[in-house]
Amino acid sequence: MLIGAVEAGGTKFVCGIGNEEGEALDRISFPTEYPEKTLAQVVDYFKDKGIDALGIGSFGPINLNPSSAQYGYVTTTPKPGWSNYPVLPELKKALNIPIGWDTDVNAAALGEATWGAAKGLDSCLYYTIGTGVGVGVYAEGRMVHGLVHPEGGHVLTRRHPEDTYEGKCPYHGDCLEGMAAGPAIEARWKVKGSELPVDHPAWEMEAYYIGQALASAILLLSPKKIILGGGVMHQRQLFPLVREQVMSGLKGYVASAALEAGGIDDYIVPPGLGDNAGLCGSIALGLRAYQSRA
Amino acid sequence: MLIGAVEAGGTKFVCGIGNEEGEALDRISFPTEYPEKTLAQVVDYFKDKGIDALGIGSFGPINLNPSSAQYGYVTTTPKPGWSNYPVLPELKKALNIPIGWDTDVNAAALGEATWGAAKGLDSCLYYTIGTGVGVGVYAEGRMVHGLVHPEGGHVLTRRHPEDTYEGKCPYHGDCLEGMAAGPAIEARWKVKGSELPVDHPAWEMEAYYIGQALASAILLLSPKKIILGGGVMHQRQLFPLVREQVMSGLKGYVASAALEAGGIDDYIVPPGLGDNAGLCGSIALGLRAYQSRA
Repeated sequence: MLIGAVEAGGTKFVCGIGNEEGEALDRISFPTEYPEKTLAQVVDYFKDKGIDALGIGSFGPINLNPSSAQYGYVTTTPKPGWSNYPVLPELKKALNIPIGWDTDVNAAALGEATWGAAKGLDSCLYYTIGTGVGVGVYAEGRMVHGLVHPEGGHVLTRRHPEDTYEGKCPYHGDCLEGMAAGPAIEARWKVKGSELPVDHPAWEMEAYYIGQALASAILLLSPKKIILGGGVMHQRQLFPLVREQVMSGLKGYVASAALEAGGIDDYIVPPGLGDNAGLCGSIALGLRAYQSRA
Repeated sequence: MLIGAVEAGGTKFVCGIGNEEGEALDRISFPTEYPEKTLAQVVDYFKDKGIDALGIGSFGPINLNPSSAQYGYVTTTPKPGWSNYPVLPELKKALNIPIGWDTDVNAAALGEATWGAAKGLDSCLYYTIGTGVGVGVYAEGRMVHGLVHPEGGHVLTRRHPEDTYEGKCPYHGDCLEGMAAGPAIEARWKVKGSELPVDHPAWEMEAYYIGQALASAILLLSPKKIILGGGVMHQRQLFPLVREQVMSGLKGYVASAALEAGGIDDYIVPPGLGDNAGLCGSIALGLRAYQSRA
């Protein structure tokens, strides 16, 4: 069986072909332009590939409510042409196969739970920390949608006592994304994060924000695994610092070996699928759509 | 059909009988003593009632993992005799009927989603704000368990700029429960909350903490409804103040009519089942256990 996968990003689209083992057999990518042009490229890529289903992990916000007339639309994005664009309906019309549709981060969470770091678990959180912060929520074996869909990158965090930076989020100022995404690091330290030495105090501060958000997420949701991906998390020195902050935030309140020294190294982890997390997530979405087809 | 219901609290047990419409037909309550004595009272109450199933919403922490040898146990409570006590196994042995088992707050969330303020919705959060703060999480039609179970009463909140109170939580000091539960109100203002006038600045401060926690929960989880119960929320003047704080925390970032003025009055609400929320939740748990019996 062949499954098509689309990572629909605001900057670029990645399209690929995978199988039911989550192996990516082929991929291409192209810049995101006006939707008509970009979706024509998507259709063109898939039309002779013989895929049985497709999965789309999309930038957002998107409409995930199957009973809405706007189901499958990108909703209110500043990206020119994409606001209120019927991405899923257009691709369904063109390809006429089962299509799975979710946020890029929910897809990545599903991919990790299917073949990656959370394989076999019925819950995980997937954080991507890069130019922004996004959070995919997988709980009780399902991707969480709800009223709209999770936007956990914007949770409100306590300010680090030594941090005078006002925050980068145009909505909230000093929310998690405003304090911890790549652009906030660069604005605070006047240099790109990738150019800061691994023992720079920036990383303690970064871990303070991430660890705090994770501690509250563990308290509210009790996920079985937390996966941290995205460009900022390529700074591997962050992992032990974040784990320390999480333990210091929880203070032993949640009794689980996974949250203690020793266990936590295997609880807060990088993506098991590495740079394939996004594409594999979309393959997993396509596979679910195939399995639940009418 | 008759369904038994147990609200297993650390102070008292409430037992009742309900039907599949969620109507409570009978109830009794008695103080929580050593587990052997209390569970004998439970069995004694139900043994001749002809119930087809039972639901138990329990104080915790509890073990919710069906593949664990300690499934159905209360785990690490300071309540004498109850630590590592096999509540569910003992009742199963005595009653030999399908039994649903969850946290008291997850049960309340399920009850509200079945017959109450979130009726017909596949997600809601249920907060009880009283002597402590507990949060039940219902998402995608399921009660969320995960690693242990949600403990969202202890999320880390930002301190109100005018608040000098150190916080009451023995673990975290100034977490949500530490700042906003009944005992924190009393310690901060030197008088019980119920004795403070409705226009006292205490309520603005209280709403600041609750609203902040709710805003972050909406961002992370996107629930379709939030229900606020518990003794502190009997102060009805809190509802408009909390809604205001939620909107001020979200700053319009999540595009949904439910989160705007006009919509939010119907989004953040008191329990639809009133003081029956706990018992009805346990009836709903029992009903689910009956429906999914082998």
